[in-house]
Amino acid sequence: MSILVVGSVAFDSIATPSGRVEDILGGAATYFALAASYFTEVRIVAVVGDDFSAEHEKVLKDHKIDTRGIERAKGKTFRWGGQYLDNLNEAKTDFTELNVFEKFHPRIPKEYGDTDFLFLANIDPRLQATVRSEMKGVRLTGGDTMNFWIQGKPKELAETLKSVNVLLINDTEVKMLAGEKNLLRASQRVLAMGPQALVVKHGEYGATIFFREGAFGIGRHPFRAPALPIEEVQDPTGAGDSFAGGFMGYIASQGELNREVLKRALFYGGVMGSFAVERFGTERLQKLTREKIEERFQVFRELTHLE
Amino acid sequence: MSILVVGSVAFDSIATPSGRVEDILGGAATYFALAASYFTEVRIVAVVGDDFSAEHEKVLKDHKIDTRGIERAKGKTFRWGGQYLDNLNEAKTDFTELNVFEKFHPRIPKEYGDTDFLFLANIDPRLQATVRSEMKGVRLTGGDTMNFWIQGKPKELAETLKSVNVLLINDTEVKMLAGEKNLLRASQRVLAMGPQALVVKHGEYGATIFFREGAFGIGRHPFRAPALPIEEVQDPTGAGDSFAGGFMGYIASQGELNREVLKRALFYGGVMGSFAVERFGTERLQKLTREKIEERFQVFRELTHLE
Repeated sequence: MSILVVGSVAFDSIATPSGRVEDILGGAATYFALAASYFTEVRIVAVVGDDFSAEHEKVLKDHKIDTRGIERAKGKTFRWGGQYLDNLNEAKTDFTELNVFEKFHPRIPKEYGDTDFLFLANIDPRLQATVRSEMKGVRLTGGDTMNFWIQGKPKELAETLKSVNVLLINDTEVKMLAGEKNLLRASQRVLAMGPQALVVKHGEYGATIFFREGAFGIGRHPFRAPALPIEEVQDPTGAGDSFAGGFMGYIASQGELNREVLKRALFYGGVMGSFAVERFGTERLQKLTREKIEERFQVFRELTHLE
Repeated sequence: MSILVVGSVAFDSIATPSGRVEDILGGAATYFALAASYFTEVRIVAVVGDDFSAEHEKVLKDHKIDTRGIERAKGKTFRWGGQYLDNLNEAKTDFTELNVFEKFHPRIPKEYGDTDFLFLANIDPRLQATVRSEMKGVRLTGGDTMNFWIQGKPKELAETLKSVNVLLINDTEVKMLAGEKNLLRASQRVLAMGPQALVVKHGEYGATIFFREGAFGIGRHPFRAPALPIEEVQDPTGAGDSFAGGFMGYIASQGELNREVLKRALFYGGVMGSFAVERFGTERLQKLTREKIEERFQVFRELTHLE
């Protein structure tokens, strides 16, 4: 089934202990779309500037991603520069040039009206809410957010969360959103805000999915998927968005929405995140096969399952 | 089979957001012994002062722990005071009074000569090496250490590590010991120092066991066990030692030493650690049953295993 991602397309300049790149294709929607494209039909809504070339678009089209929702505005594409020289777990931002992204107002092409699944990447919660209200027919909506919106637009975010089925954020964000340091209690508070399931990403330690009682079937416990210990993390940029792409893409590829599907999706999220960080930018995500993904899924299983 | 733990017995004064206790029974050997006692026959070598009463000893004896190796010295028992008021993941030490522990020199009772398994809790690596050399007949030796020894006695520690089969330390310690920030590379370096297996404890995110190639059978991958998200961590003191007790105790209870046993042991480590933190000090560890342990083992399994 089809999935629509709404979010940023960007050009990133990144420095890590493994090297340095400039103006490479990035952005949450790009990572998400590429990761999800191995599982299902992907559509994208984003804005780019004059500097977004046919070659850039080809990266997406080569993965059969529907780019009709990419708006071309006058000006330059969103640019971000950051480094992970001291700490691979946290980006230090060098610069942010919003450019055409500053006035981004998502426009959903008519042809996207029949989309089955929706992912609201990390953008202004008011825009997320608008998109969500225009896509009433979707079977399930996933969403991301960040500290900036949690602190800056808490009311708007609360409104958006009411119509997000699965929220994917990290430890710091869930604790900040809930105003509670204990992960389990914080998760319960966030689930009370609207989502039926909450995926908490733990970086190099994997992720946990918490379910609201009765949501997606019966079960008493959360579920944890590991991350793969990786010998050389070349570039952590986009790991979370690739995780979301693997997670949502797998869900969209399944007929049913139940806990077992969401648990397996958590593994696929980890798998796609682990590929993403092995090379700079989207390089690794561009050259995968479903077979390689299944192989790594088996590694994740061996990593966690007793005989 | 029998296991001997050599380490500290202490009286702890602890403040956490859940409350405050003074001079309660603690120490690495105490937590380890209680946790391991649910799996196998436990022996202990430690030193206490005049203030260690028959009532304190009864806590151990009630769990059939052999206390003949507890030496009574003139003076006061080791005392530690700490708090976790701001951060449950890290103790802030208020005071350390080594007392009789300062001159601790482990004396192994003759009756312990036939011990099958050995655990060297976190003490001076020179003492660990001495004990290890006196217990040549054991089937497997586990060990712990800490930043203080890694930085202060690196040569002595390196000597000790040559004869430790399984080292159990946390992320920070493995990275410090290896002088390497990447967990996978750091683990490989530590394994090259002697141990056949390395257990890296990730606190609230569980633990990973890395194997030296060919050790304990064949397999390409490390293995990760989760920690249980807990609603109220009353007191994190002793979590790591309880983890080690569950891990080593389970191994000692099994006939074979292979990867599958060590993987299951990692789960039992997490289970015992999760019990320990639910109450202050050793309270929870004193009142368990094997049935409750198996129940929680199943929870850990549900937390991580796909259908």
